[in-house]
Amino acid sequence: MRLLNEKGFNEMTRFLCRKCRYTSSIDKYFWKCPKCGHPLDLVYDIEWTPKGRGVLRYTSLLPIKPLKTLGEGNTPTVGEEFNSVKIYFKLEYLNPSGSFKDRGTVIALSYARQLGYNRVLEDTSGNTGVSIALYAVAYGLKATIVMPSYAPEGKKKLIRLFNGEIIETPTRSDAAKKVIEILKEKPSYFYVAHTWSPFYVEGYKTIAYELYEDDIYVDAVIAPIGSGGLFIGLYRGFKDLMELGLIKDIPLMVGVQGVSVAPVYSAVTGKSVSGDSSLADGVMVANPPRLNEIVSIIRENGCITVVDNVDIVEALKWLLSKGYIVEPTSAIALAGLWKLLNSKECSIGGKVLIPLTGSGLKMFNEIYNAILIRS
Amino acid sequence: MRLLNEKGFNEMTRFLCRKCRYTSSIDKYFWKCPKCGHPLDLVYDIEWTPKGRGVLRYTSLLPIKPLKTLGEGNTPTVGEEFNSVKIYFKLEYLNPSGSFKDRGTVIALSYARQLGYNRVLEDTSGNTGVSIALYAVAYGLKATIVMPSYAPEGKKKLIRLFNGEIIETPTRSDAAKKVIEILKEKPSYFYVAHTWSPFYVEGYKTIAYELYEDDIYVDAVIAPIGSGGLFIGLYRGFKDLMELGLIKDIPLMVGVQGVSVAPVYSAVTGKSVSGDSSLADGVMVANPPRLNEIVSIIRENGCITVVDNVDIVEALKWLLSKGYIVEPTSAIALAGLWKLLNSKECSIGGKVLIPLTGSGLKMFNEIYNAILIRS
Repeated sequence: MRLLNEKGFNEMTRFLCRKCRYTSSIDKYFWKCPKCGHPLDLVYDIEWTPKGRGVLRYTSLLPIKPLKTLGEGNTPTVGEEFNSVKIYFKLEYLNPSGSFKDRGTVIALSYARQLGYNRVLEDTSGNTGVSIALYAVAYGLKATIVMPSYAPEGKKKLIRLFNGEIIETPTRSDAAKKVIEILKEKPSYFYVAHTWSPFYVEGYKTIAYELYEDDIYVDAVIAPIGSGGLFIGLYRGFKDLMELGLIKDIPLMVGVQGVSVAPVYSAVTGKSVSGDSSLADGVMVANPPRLNEIVSIIRENGCITVVDNVDIVEALKWLLSKGYIVEPTSAIALAGLWKLLNSKECSIGGKVLIPLTGSGLKMFNEIYNAILIRS
Repeated sequence: MRLLNEKGFNEMTRFLCRKCRYTSSIDKYFWKCPKCGHPLDLVYDIEWTPKGRGVLRYTSLLPIKPLKTLGEGNTPTVGEEFNSVKIYFKLEYLNPSGSFKDRGTVIALSYARQLGYNRVLEDTSGNTGVSIALYAVAYGLKATIVMPSYAPEGKKKLIRLFNGEIIETPTRSDAAKKVIEILKEKPSYFYVAHTWSPFYVEGYKTIAYELYEDDIYVDAVIAPIGSGGLFIGLYRGFKDLMELGLIKDIPLMVGVQGVSVAPVYSAVTGKSVSGDSSLADGVMVANPPRLNEIVSIIRENGCITVVDNVDIVEALKWLLSKGYIVEPTSAIALAGLWKLLNSKECSIGGKVLIPLTGSGLKMFNEIYNAILIRS
């Protein structure tokens, strides 16, 4: 029996560093291992007792109880046939802030609020910033979002509408440096660090649980990999389901990256790639903190491919023509599926899950230009 | 036992004009009564046998079986306390095209497709155009959308992304005239006519069904009234539930209009109003075809109020501060609740439903300007 304390924390939940075996209570926050600097994980007991709706439905499988829902989770799954493959699209862009990030933010910011933090800090290329600004305002937290100046205007305006403070930097990696500077000056800020955060990974597990409850079983999961949080979360969700005796196998885990920034592809295959995949700005993470874990999942039972802007525009146009309003980054998983169907790199099977990660509504200008200019 | 024919039509479904009692099979489409010009209704048997997900879950309570889901319906309901009132917000802006219209469009366009039409035609201020363009492209139909040139740029761009043809007119009423001209020249076009359409009204019923299945019972429903389709649909949904013996009473039906264009308010109260509610562009319908039905619902068990831009901005800011990304039109129902709580016009009760109708993601520029300029 899981016990929740007065903060809604599962009393058994602990931080664990899988590299140096550091462990501590979650009553004090660390965004990375205070001993060796590796990403932390959360360890806790799970029970399969779904109750309620959305992400909150799976509180018994999460490290802490989310504070208040904004409607995240419980997204629709829509089937499409493509040649001989049945694709199940999970419409993650219908989450409250228009992306799958809300499944992680609801947990991470509940935790920040319960620990008594007043301000959250984050570096992001866009969607995470909108998600964090949204939950911050709803939870009574201030948000400081550091993002590259070239991030879509719509995402910036949304963050400002939620009273988020925006600090712009020339590049995404400058944003990552800037937050560390800020954190040194203001150690009382809660640095969300979603590319490191175990809270986000745990939140993404709920996608796998929902698929199971919708009675959908797939041979493969095809997901974009930026920091890899979604990819790892999906894997852990299916692993939970297997360990609970609810499913027999974990699907083949297929990752897709853009050719511009493809550290996972290079680590797995040893090949370097070149080309332009700038339309998929959401997955441009040069140094994913959880690289080793991603690589080991792929080596165990997965594969990886890369796509470029031409592939992305083709997939985006197909998705729009079927009625899915998604951003270009969301199209890379489908582009990856097409690529793998035309190669012998890995055998996908007849049924696949593709999470459609982010809404096109936040960046219709950029999509409009991409489609019109490039087609 | 309901029988569906090869088109997915309930075999008993007929058009009925409640004014002149004209009735006909639905194998031929009329957007209004061919005899007297009144809006038509659809009559058919219903059964309470929910199965599946979203709007499709309620096929046994709808006139026809929707062709293919894009993920419409099954929206989250989130509770908020305001003073002594518990407000249940139904997040209709998390529908696939970002508005509640999708619940009607999925039915209307399934019908058009099954009848063999190739092109749909519509006049709209925005959200309906996006919704129709989305379902049209997914169902293999061409869409021609006639809209005022001042409609939000984002909505126009989205319609174009779905290969919709846009014809711009100086005003909303010019758009209404223009479609009639087009229809005379091209009688093979399916004129959706959502402000007249019984298909939309029937689709909106599903909001009431979902509330019932979520075990939520309210004293009042507060909804924006433009053409009144949503308002009538909610009423009919609760009426179905009562006739099926599933609930005891229909909630108080509260309508809210903007002061700029308030034909229902004037018809019910005999008062004319003035002022500016231009931010709520989605409810500016000067001559609702179903005016008499709306008035009779309100006279039976409801009330009506009006709000202006100041009220709308205040409500919109409150909604944004709680984490709801909605467009200004969506804020008028909350503004109306606040107005009624401060008056003796009608007694709302302790629990209310407010559908939040349209996403702010499609018009973040306009919201941004409204909030910044007016606050």
